[in-house]
Amino acid sequence: MSKKPTSKSVQQKSIALHKKLRGKIETKTKMRVTSMQELALLYTPGVGAVCQELARRPKAARDYTFKGNSVAVISDGSSVLGLGNIGPYGAYPVMEGKALIFKEFAGVDAIPLVLDTQDPDELVRIVKAIASTFGGINLEDIAAPACFDIEKRLIEELDIPVMHDDQHGTAIVVLAGLINACKVTKRKLEDSVIVVNGVGAAGIATMRLIKEYAPTAIIIAVDSQGIIWTGRKDLNTEKQALIDERIASSSKGGTLSEALAGADIFIGVSRGNILTADMVRNMNVSPVIFALANPTPEIMPDKALQAGAGVVATGRSDFPNQVNNALVFPGVFRGALDNNVKKITTGMKIKAAKALASLVKSPKAEKIIPDIFDKRVVKAIAKVIR
Amino acid sequence: MSKKPTSKSVQQKSIALHKKLRGKIETKTKMRVTSMQELALLYTPGVGAVCQELARRPKAARDYTFKGNSVAVISDGSSVLGLGNIGPYGAYPVMEGKALIFKEFAGVDAIPLVLDTQDPDELVRIVKAIASTFGGINLEDIAAPACFDIEKRLIEELDIPVMHDDQHGTAIVVLAGLINACKVTKRKLEDSVIVVNGVGAAGIATMRLIKEYAPTAIIIAVDSQGIIWTGRKDLNTEKQALIDERIASSSKGGTLSEALAGADIFIGVSRGNILTADMVRNMNVSPVIFALANPTPEIMPDKALQAGAGVVATGRSDFPNQVNNALVFPGVFRGALDNNVKKITTGMKIKAAKALASLVKSPKAEKIIPDIFDKRVVKAIAKVIR
Repeated sequence: MSKKPTSKSVQQKSIALHKKLRGKIETKTKMRVTSMQELALLYTPGVGAVCQELARRPKAARDYTFKGNSVAVISDGSSVLGLGNIGPYGAYPVMEGKALIFKEFAGVDAIPLVLDTQDPDELVRIVKAIASTFGGINLEDIAAPACFDIEKRLIEELDIPVMHDDQHGTAIVVLAGLINACKVTKRKLEDSVIVVNGVGAAGIATMRLIKEYAPTAIIIAVDSQGIIWTGRKDLNTEKQALIDERIASSSKGGTLSEALAGADIFIGVSRGNILTADMVRNMNVSPVIFALANPTPEIMPDKALQAGAGVVATGRSDFPNQVNNALVFPGVFRGALDNNVKKITTGMKIKAAKALASLVKSPKAEKIIPDIFDKRVVKAIAKVIR
Repeated sequence: MSKKPTSKSVQQKSIALHKKLRGKIETKTKMRVTSMQELALLYTPGVGAVCQELARRPKAARDYTFKGNSVAVISDGSSVLGLGNIGPYGAYPVMEGKALIFKEFAGVDAIPLVLDTQDPDELVRIVKAIASTFGGINLEDIAAPACFDIEKRLIEELDIPVMHDDQHGTAIVVLAGLINACKVTKRKLEDSVIVVNGVGAAGIATMRLIKEYAPTAIIIAVDSQGIIWTGRKDLNTEKQALIDERIASSSKGGTLSEALAGADIFIGVSRGNILTADMVRNMNVSPVIFALANPTPEIMPDKALQAGAGVVATGRSDFPNQVNNALVFPGVFRGALDNNVKKITTGMKIKAAKALASLVKSPKAEKIIPDIFDKRVVKAIAKVIR
């Protein structure tokens, strides 16, 4: 098992494969056009009747066009993977990869749309204008804190489901993993002290969802400057909101190490190698460690286990318990499209996390999350998005 | 042969077919994803290397992503078929129909994008922002005169080919038809008097292209208020430009009927039933009649032929000589993508018209234009777009 973040070989193979494929998705016609009669029905003059029908009843577009089964995977490239602000072209292969996963796992017709602007108002205007084409909007790799306001405005103003996957995809799969990790380590999430290191899109959404699911859990939020608390004067609106909403519940400041003393659960959505064996040893008995930074986790699983961790999860496929958004977004949008859902609510997200967790019948330290190729995953999630 | 514009039966069948298909195109993965190893190459972590490569070299996106073979079919729904301003949902079935034709005839991965705005500046901003995703932009069913400025700005500001098909698709196929119609009626286009009735997107682009191909032809432009000439005070910028560019060459005003007296060629891109048998009789011997209004032509072919027309073409598939943009746009974008063409020039448009005309080896009155299912069409046009 390789300990290197991403081996040279995988990188080179990926570049070679992308160059060979020249795109990971393509379009396909749902009906061949081989005669003038067919063309007259699919295009002019017959199509005019469909146009008039949709002009009268825009809602029928989902029954007559590509709209009904389609999702736009939209990014401005401002925060791509662990690579940062690398713009629309840098983001493109990830968005197209998501479109591939959408089709392969959930039969959703997703289109990558990378935008050559990072102005939040412009981004909102663009997405609003193109929304008539799609049945759902999957926002992706948009930097915090702009991502919060962008998503909020689009959810309010559009009549199709909008989800920023870095936030809610992560939050749902983390919550699913925590539900089973608590079973394995025989603790209750609602009685746990949870330290979340990394207060960006994923961290904030994860904390909010945990708080909804387990209101009595104690959550300590930590960013690069230490614990988030009332004494901090450097907080942006979103971090301040965590205090105002009583999600970040620490009443004093301190370091990550101090936050972790006696804590039950560590959730890292930050950067590699910041969690030491000593910090793990200083946590409660058999702590739960979600070291989700990619490609290098906050702590390597073997090191965490040696230091006493009861369960370890990472974002990587080469270790057990991969916490992967791809377990979530295909099912969420499959369900939203099938059930004509206009907004993905917090209630749906919690149900999705529970549904995902419940697919692991007997959670074990090395198996708290279903495999991404488990055919039941998309169906189980889609069923509760209604 | 039905004389009714679009029979009830075709309309009902088209609606039923659209409802059954629930979309005419879908996405398809170019490679299945069945293992974690494949996923690691197509998505994270392997894809990170491709992202970094494209962030460094945006131009490589066409070799590594969907961009290389894709075209966005964009409309604001402001001028759809003969139906007018029916908005994005009304336009949707046409745009998706074009996407279907793009794939079926030319293997181009086209995506319909209907926009919920009709502000030209906003439209330009949106298209500029999404252009990084696509290899070409096909503008469609955008009303004149806004369409002219929108297309001009996008051509100037983008590094991918942009074509407003209502203008140039029509112009190219009309010129191709005229080349052969002149052979059939034994006249020279450069010595002809051509009356163009309808001075919108299609009419203006057609006149400009004819003028480039046959600079000595005399073109008389006629709109709903009569002949375009210097005496008119009600002309918009684009119509005035026709005079300034010496394309609309009449030195006096008058009616359509007066314009046609002694003329060689009538091109109607206006509305049904405005050309009378008497007007045709009053033209030069064996005149060429392109009655392209849809669904009802300016004059029915049998009536025009009885009045002495040498060649009649319409926009309809149920009469001989269908002047159909679908003969042109697939090949133009196929060529632009294959040959990495950044701008579709006038020279290319003329070559495309000649290439299209040359596919009819022995033009006859009832056969001046190739069949849309003729497999040679796309290849012949694509070859000259370079």
